[in-house]
Amino acid sequence: MSAPAPLLRRATVEGLGTAALVAVVIGSGIQATELTRDVGTRLLANSLATVFGLGVLIALLGGVSGAHFNPAVTLADWFTGRRTSEAHTLRDVAAYVPAQVAGAIAGAVLADAMFGKPLVHFSTHDRFSSQLWLGEVVATAGLVWLIFGLARAGRAHLAPLLVASYIGAAYWFTSSTSFANPAVTIGRAFTDTFAGIAPTSVLPFLAAQLLGAAAGLGLVAVCFGRPAAAGEDEVTVPHGVQQPAAPVRSTEESALAS
Amino acid sequence: MSAPAPLLRRATVEGLGTAALVAVVIGSGIQATELTRDVGTRLLANSLATVFGLGVLIALLGGVSGAHFNPAVTLADWFTGRRTSEAHTLRDVAAYVPAQVAGAIAGAVLADAMFGKPLVHFSTHDRFSSQLWLGEVVATAGLVWLIFGLARAGRAHLAPLLVASYIGAAYWFTSSTSFANPAVTIGRAFTDTFAGIAPTSVLPFLAAQLLGAAAGLGLVAVCFGRPAAAGEDEVTVPHGVQQPAAPVRSTEESALAS
Amino acid sequence: MSAPAPLLRRATVEGLGTAALVAVVIGSGIQATELTRDVGTRLLANSLATVFGLGVLIALLGGVSGAHFNPAVTLADWFTGRRTSEAHTLRDVAAYVPAQVAGAIAGAVLADAMFGKPLVHFSTHDRFSSQLWLGEVVATAGLVWLIFGLARAGRAHLAPLLVASYIGAAYWFTSSTSFANPAVTIGRAFTDTFAGIAPTSVLPFLAAQLLGAAAGLGLVAVCFGRPAAAGEDEVTVPHGVQQPAAPVRSTEESALAS
Amino acid sequence: MSAPAPLLRRATVEGLGTAALVAVVIGSGIQATELTRDVGTRLLANSLATVFGLGVLIALLGGVSGAHFNPAVTLADWFTGRRTSEAHTLRDVAAYVPAQVAGAIAGAVLADAMFGKPLVHFSTHDRFSSQLWLGEVVATAGLVWLIFGLARAGRAHLAPLLVASYIGAAYWFTSSTSFANPAVTIGRAFTDTFAGIAPTSVLPFLAAQLLGAAAGLGLVAVCFGRPAAAGEDEVTVPHGVQQPAAPVRSTEESALAS
Repeated sequence: MSAPAPLLRRATVEGLGTAALVAVVIGSGIQATELTRDVGTRLLANSLATVFGLGVLIALLGGVSGAHFNPAVTLADWFTGRRTSEAHTLRDVAAYVPAQVAGAIAGAVLADAMFGKPLVHFSTHDRFSSQLWLGEVVATAGLVWLIFGLARAGRAHLAPLLVASYIGAAYWFTSSTSFANPAVTIGRAFTDTFAGIAPTSVLPFLAAQLLGAAAGLGLVAVCFGRPAAAGEDEVTVPHGVQQPAAPVRSTEESALAS
Repeated sequence: MSAPAPLLRRATVEGLGTAALVAVVIGSGIQATELTRDVGTRLLANSLATVFGLGVLIALLGGVSGAHFNPAVTLADWFTGRRTSEAHTLRDVAAYVPAQVAGAIAGAVLADAMFGKPLVHFSTHDRFSSQLWLGEVVATAGLVWLIFGLARAGRAHLAPLLVASYIGAAYWFTSSTSFANPAVTIGRAFTDTFAGIAPTSVLPFLAAQLLGAAAGLGLVAVCFGRPAAAGEDEVTVPHGVQQPAAPVRSTEESALAS
Repeated sequence: MSAPAPLLRRATVEGLGTAALVAVVIGSGIQATELTRDVGTRLLANSLATVFGLGVLIALLGGVSGAHFNPAVTLADWFTGRRTSEAHTLRDVAAYVPAQVAGAIAGAVLADAMFGKPLVHFSTHDRFSSQLWLGEVVATAGLVWLIFGLARAGRAHLAPLLVASYIGAAYWFTSSTSFANPAVTIGRAFTDTFAGIAPTSVLPFLAAQLLGAAAGLGLVAVCFGRPAAAGEDEVTVPHGVQQPAAPVRSTEESALAS
Repeated sequence: MSAPAPLLRRATVEGLGTAALVAVVIGSGIQATELTRDVGTRLLANSLATVFGLGVLIALLGGVSGAHFNPAVTLADWFTGRRTSEAHTLRDVAAYVPAQVAGAIAGAVLADAMFGKPLVHFSTHDRFSSQLWLGEVVATAGLVWLIFGLARAGRAHLAPLLVASYIGAAYWFTSSTSFANPAVTIGRAFTDTFAGIAPTSVLPFLAAQLLGAAAGLGLVAVCFGRPAAAGEDEVTVPHGVQQPAAPVRSTEESALAS
């Protein structure tokens, strides 16, 4: 296991990955809208494209930055590892989150450019109701339950497949079509297309997502019990291999790295 | 291999997993109904969301409880292992099944809440005909054939992918759209939406499912012959590793744990 | 590696697997026809259900019988291994092929029964044109190229995923929607539903399939060169492990067994 | 690891694989057009068939030729490895690229033949606008970023799944539906069907693809830093195994070979 990449490169990768994710989400929504009037078929295309794209991005970039692409995940990761590892500093959070948000906006602009839309046109799509907020709580809780639960189960290498699959389900089973990501939510405000969200609807979505992330960590604790002592979950390290000295990446971060 | 989790935690996980499964099934059905009038497109969305969600749940929770989420599977598991393992007691069955049923009802209520439906509104969707019952026999027989056959074939680690895929096929090739699960059937009676089933149609479905489970165990015996002596199928244990003393989880339960 | 199952059990498994495959193909076609008038959506459902179902059947049963479910594959397997292994006898072919055909007919009857159709009603769907026959040649050539090429490439363990994926593509890119299987073709003559084929169209399809199988073996030779000496491809056997004495299953058969 | 196949066989495999890929793309487009008038459903079928077919072709043929099927990838591969390996010669490029182009045209003719279309009928589908060219830049950049990034990340064995998934996303999120391949673009000019492109639109597409390939290599450098010394990435070689003498296949080529 080589040393983690420098923080600048990791943050750059978070920005690029989030940009690509948002371009997939928004671009496929525009394409689908142009090709069919059946909204069900539109969401089928939009969700399948996201499943394919997100899985690819996590598998490609997970080994560099952890492939969070999501401030809710970065914060949950910091919260979970804050006492057990020197690698989980607020300095990482302070680099990742702005990179994710900037990347998300860039991704929205890129998608609009590819389809000849105004590069920035704030969405007029109101998504403002208590049932949508409940949808976001559920969607983000499920996402965090999955990501951090896989780490606890020693199955973090399945994250690219399973996180992508989860989002494919959550597009459909949550009333909000599962934004589940503060950075992506902000980026989606910058396009007035299928996947957009009116700027006035953004803040409650962010609040619901953070609430959901906390609930997701609660579900992890209920299902997997108290975390083992540091390193105990890292079942993939062969016996006889010396653990590297600190700074190490925490269990959860490795998990995200798939 | 660590010791199995305490029964209380395993039963809780069965309840949470079944709740999530039912929320996926019902929620995606509601979303699809709101977005398209083409019933084929609705079932495409409903079935794909279930494939994605079920695979994730088995992979995430299989290591804790076995990820049955299904009384027919729990009963077949008890029946198969009743003479060969101390771990297969009726006490487990008595904890799992009520947790599964309660979870299923909770999942239905959650789905209704996310979409602004009445939290409990019994379904008016009659599913009462001999051909639907035959569909349920076939659907459940196939599911049990798969789960317990994989254990016999030493491929239980593929269960998350294959059980999810099976349900994706069975939604379409069985006339009943493959409930194949007594707990989920009961949960689906609590919502008057796309995936619902009228309470008066529930009992024959449960009977057909139990009949199908028995047929599925018969198919396993026909295809894989008499079971080997205890432990002989557990090909994943490396040579030289000491088997843990009793109580161990049986072959079948490990299989479900993927 | 344990000894192969007795021929009776292997042939039974071929029959059961082919029955299940045909029930999936025909059943999902009926369901799709009942739910939508858009023929594109029907074939999407029909093809995705077949992908899911076929992958599951190969993974579940491949270790017992090789999971041919297809006389063209059984014959190609016999032809390829006829000089190098005692296990490839015409006796196997004579047991597998009738079991596959009987299973296919039983699967058609089962699907009709689940959907309340007449149990046997010969199809009135003419599929009789030279371009459809070319489609069948291409479809079967591709299937045989894949199955026997994977064995040569040492990737036979990927057969459940890849054979299912191939059929998912071939439903769409061949004009005949890729029957590619003489037993399944015969079975599909017994139902007058979406997936049916008029009995008068069957024989040319069978001829095209056999021609395609031969072409597929030619493609394997072009792409992978002359076969290595016996056993040389069996890269999965760890060094130092003694090969079992004859009768062994040939490379190709092991390949199919995934 | 055996020696690489002779160049003639490798080039033949590139031609056959590209032919099959183009037959899948064009054939599924024709089938979809015949079955539905909903263009969204057509592109769903077209993209899913391509995902299934491309994944199969890479897994089947990657071990022989590297499974480029794409002059942009072959050129990027030559460019990346030109200083570190004797295996990356222009002679390889000069054999691969014509084989890919000839294969692509043959695949178009085969698809037309299967569906009873004129064997060669140049497309009348204009795809000539700056936003489509931006789409092609993005599509090819993403493809090259993925393929060469996976090699750098030591995950080249996932290429069949991930490259296919990427194309499934790119069909939808790029405005050009992601040709991303000069040979396939030329082949698609030979058919006047759903997937066709007017000959007058071809050249700018090729230019955009080459630009995108260069951008993709830039993304690899940004995300993964300077390449390690020769061989350092080849993490799959067990310790103690002697590396074969030159000529070896470069890291990137092995990556493509999955």
